[in-house]
Formats: sequence, structure tokens, C-alpha cells
Amino acid sequence: MTGVLYGVGVGPGAPDLITLRAARLIEGASVVAYPTLAGAESFARGIAADLIAPDAEEIVMAVPMSVERAPAQVAYDAGAARIAEALDAGRDVVCLCEGDPFFYGSFMYLFARLSDRYRVEVVPGVSSVTACAARAGMPLAARNERLTVLPGPLPEGELRARIDGAESVAIMKVGRHLPKIRAVIDALGLTERAVYVERASLPEEVVLPLAKAPQTAPYFSMILLTKGADPWL
Amino acid sequence: MTGVLYGVGVGPGAPDLITLRAARLIEGASVVAYPTLAGAESFARGIAADLIAPDAEEIVMAVPMSVERAPAQVAYDAGAARIAEALDAGRDVVCLCEGDPFFYGSFMYLFARLSDRYRVEVVPGVSSVTACAARAGMPLAARNERLTVLPGPLPEGELRARIDGAESVAIMKVGRHLPKIRAVIDALGLTERAVYVERASLPEEVVLPLAKAPQTAPYFSMILLTKGADPWL
Repeated sequence: MTGVLYGVGVGPGAPDLITLRAARLIEGASVVAYPTLAGAESFARGIAADLIAPDAEEIVMAVPMSVERAPAQVAYDAGAARIAEALDAGRDVVCLCEGDPFFYGSFMYLFARLSDRYRVEVVPGVSSVTACAARAGMPLAARNERLTVLPGPLPEGELRARIDGAESVAIMKVGRHLPKIRAVIDALGLTERAVYVERASLPEEVVLPLAKAPQTAPYFSMILLTKGADPWL
Repeated sequence: MTGVLYGVGVGPGAPDLITLRAARLIEGASVVAYPTLAGAESFARGIAADLIAPDAEEIVMAVPMSVERAPAQVAYDAGAARIAEALDAGRDVVCLCEGDPFFYGSFMYLFARLSDRYRVEVVPGVSSVTACAARAGMPLAARNERLTVLPGPLPEGELRARIDGAESVAIMKVGRHLPKIRAVIDALGLTERAVYVERASLPEEVVLPLAKAPQTAPYFSMILLTKGADPWL
């Protein structure tokens, strides 16, 4: 009997935005796995810390921050091998993912490596997009409106074309791309409709009109933009 | 001291996909509010049913199913007035929303009516988009991929143009628009990359390749489509 691999979304940051199902799985886990980026503390582990049993085995995947894909692939290959070992020994493994596992989540890399050989259950989580919208007091989409999610690292021309053709927009992974994104939104005359959100739902959260955003942004920051519906809907 | 209005996402359907924060708020609520559509049972109330205190007051907003906006506006006006009465009396009100309150959620209509006068807290929930992706085993977006969310009622030409220009696509509110959406995806040669999901996370859930989807779809159904990344990411 091999174990089950659970890909568990732990939500945007506040520990109480974890779902009941995820909390139950994490509390009961004898093996938890998670990535750490560039040697930093694991964000996903931090969110779930109070739920992890003290004697749980922890499989840590140290993923280098790099625009090259190969180094990350090596880290996920190694992590997948360790997880497979636990599954082969009949132990379930709970893999922690910030936000949602299938929405820009690192779990996709493990899913691609293990789902053909093992039973995998994905537990969806609250994504940072709706968490940011909640904190910004900014409804994202109603009725027949469209929502476009764009990663900040996209080239300037593509960002501009995509934002121009969209209704509501969420721009993820802003980080060092903030100046470029600001310039695009400014050029489109949409700055007054844009909000900057950093570390939504955490104590150090920042929510500001884009015009007042700081000069440097962390990786976990987002810009939301809506072209505006009737406020009475 | 007026009360606080909480707009609480209860997730896609399974009661244990409610967040810890939402569960705590619902359990402690002396007033809960929710919409019912076209006289049917309230989906949001059904998801949270086991958490609602037996003596809680329930404010029910009966929203007619109609392409006209005016009848729904009348229902939300009336609901907002009743909620305002409770808030004025110093009572907190917990408004239940399926999925996430600001993502095609009915709570937006109450937020538009009440947020200028009362303290409103929005508690984000797991959206049906990531719940469907989890059940379909279909990662939505990785790295620099874009995700486009489209409502099924959009006109055929617009759907076609938007799907053609997108990478990953989630089409919401499929319902009676299924034949039109299928025709568009077929014409674009993308049927083999599309999955149909109905009532994700509920016991009556259906997950099928689009080619095998039923002829008629309920309102809470979705089509997911990804144009495919390297499976090893």
C-alpha cells in the first residue's frame, strides 16, 4: 500500500485563511514537504507552522531563485525522489503550498513528476488574487465581466497589450518589475484605477493606490486594476 | 456602536473547504444573510449549514433569475435595508457567499450599497476556478503564463477572440451556454485540451473531457482549457 500525496493550499498568508480540510490534513501529517526559495524561510511552512506536529518529518526542497529553469528542476527532482520514498513506504505526504497548488504554485512541479505513479489529491486554497481584492475593497468581476491574470515578468509590450484589452486585471509577482508595470499603467491612463497590495492578510500588509506605491516591491506583491462597473451593479 | 458587516466566502461547495476564519465567524453569528436564486435553496447556506447557530436570525434575499438587472437590484436594495437595520442595532451580520465574495459573488451588490456607511470586512474564500482545477488534475498557470477568466454568457464572437488570444482559460457560468461554448472551442481545435467540471468538490461532482460533456449543464459548471506547458515544467 503506497501513501497518498496531498497538495495542500494554505492560502495567502494569514493562518486562519487555511481551509478546514487543509488544517485537518496538516495536523494529521507524519510527513510534510515544502519548498524554500533562495535559502529564505519557507512562506508556506510559516503559514501552517502552528498546525504541524512536532514530530513530523519535514522534506525541504531548497529551490534556487533563478530565471534559468534547470536549477529549480534539479531541486524538484530531488524533492520528488524523497517524497516517492515516503509514499513507497506507505506514508502519506502533505505538501504545503502558499495560495492554491495549481495557481502559480510550486506543487505543479511535483504533480508533474509524481501523479502518474501515485495517488495525488489537490486541496484548493484561497488565492492571493481574491485575498488582495478583499483587502483593497475592490470587487474583481461581476456578471459578464472578464478577469485577466498576468505575471509581472511579462515583457512591457505584451503587458501593455494585455492590460489594454482586458477589463479587470490582476498582475502577480510584481517585485522588481514594479517600475515597468507602473509605466505601462500610466501610459494607458489607468493609474487612478489601480491598487498596489503587498503581503495581503499578513500583519505587515500594505494596501495603497498605485500612485503611492513604494519604489521597491517584494516578490509577493500584486497590482489590481478594474476598469470600473456601475457601483450599484 | 454599529455592527460590522462580514462578507464571507464559503468556498466551492464542500463544507470543509470553508476557511478557519469563515467557520469561526459563521459559528459566532447571531445574524446571517444570504441570497436565494429563483426560489431555490441557497447554495451558500447549504455549504455552511452545519455551522449556523440554531437561533441565528436569517436574512434571506430572494433574487429573481433574470437577464434584466432591475429585479435583482430591488431584491438587494431590500436585503441591504434589512442588513442596515441589524447593523444600526449594533449587531454584526455575516453574509454568506459561495466561492469568494469579490469573484462573481453576490456580496458585491451589498458592498456597493453598504460600504460607504458601515465597516465591512471581506473574508476571501476558495474560488470555484481553483477547485475545478484541483478536481480535474489540471494545473492552471505556472511561471509567466496568463490566465483568463471568461463568463459563458459572452457573445460567441467575443468568446472566440478571447479564447484564441489566451493561454489558460476558465469559462464560468456555463449552464445553457454549453452548446455555444463547445462550438467555439471545437472551431479553435482546442476540444482535446478542455475539461468540463460540474459542482466541483460536491458528492454529485462531474469531471469529464469536454468531448464527453453532457448536453445540458447546470449554472454551476465550468470549462477549463490550457494550451499546454511542458509537463516537466
